[in-house]
Amino acid sequence: MKIILGSDHGGYQLKEHLRKYLAGKETEDLGVFSEESSHYPEIAKKVAEKVVSEKCFGILICGTGIGVSIAANKVNGARAALCHSTEYAALARQHNHANILCLGGRFTEHSLAEKIVDTFLTTEEEDGRHDVRVAMLDEMDINC
Amino acid sequence: MKIILGSDHGGYQLKEHLRKYLAGKETEDLGVFSEESSHYPEIAKKVAEKVVSEKCFGILICGTGIGVSIAANKVNGARAALCHSTEYAALARQHNHANILCLGGRFTEHSLAEKIVDTFLTTEEEDGRHDVRVAMLDEMDINC
Repeated sequence: MKIILGSDHGGYQLKEHLRKYLAGKETEDLGVFSEESSHYPEIAKKVAEKVVSEKCFGILICGTGIGVSIAANKVNGARAALCHSTEYAALARQHNHANILCLGGRFTEHSLAEKIVDTFLTTEEEDGRHDVRVAMLDEMDINC
Repeated sequence: MKIILGSDHGGYQLKEHLRKYLAGKETEDLGVFSEESSHYPEIAKKVAEKVVSEKCFGILICGTGIGVSIAANKVNGARAALCHSTEYAALARQHNHANILCLGGRFTEHSLAEKIVDTFLTTEEEDGRHDVRVAMLDEMDINC
């Protein structure tokens, strides 16, 4: 599954690290491409829209991960989960069918981020009651 | 400032704790009112819509906080931040002008949750470049 990467300046270093870490997989890096000040809603919108249209995964990083998670979830079909542990990454996939992983570039160590990414990319969605709830999120995309 | 509370079953215990902790303040509890299985998008939508229309604060809790944060951010005008530390709560208010605090009921100890809530409720928004970015989030509410 293709992985689309994006960050603002606060997430640039971690995005660069993860791009190299994911070198064996199909990735697309939508920026930013330097540590110059940038606006997290712009990159979050770009990545989230592409994730939804290509039905693939996204990784979005800002200083805390909060900004990109707020922005990405505004996009119809995006389910962006801010994860600070592998347990969160697993639950985000299993229960919330998250398609975008958000990370805090100024708070999550590179080695932990690698483990969180690995967990996110390899954990399957659970169905049943979780399907019902994800359908409700889709409903909100249309009506809210 | 009024605080609207809501949780699914996974956040019920922490919501009950925080409702009592916030007894001296104006709060409104929109449920759930038991640990029976419930759907996080329903309560997140209800709380987020009321927070936006009353221009007040919200606290939303599910097992991880991920589900309610995805759902709440679907609502126009909602800026829901999943926080697992006081530092995150401060930055969510300062940089992202978050109006809803999301917590993981199965992961955040009650005593830490109290500190996160206190920080969230007492930290002021910073303006300048942060205003520009929050205006972009408002734009996404209209167009995404």
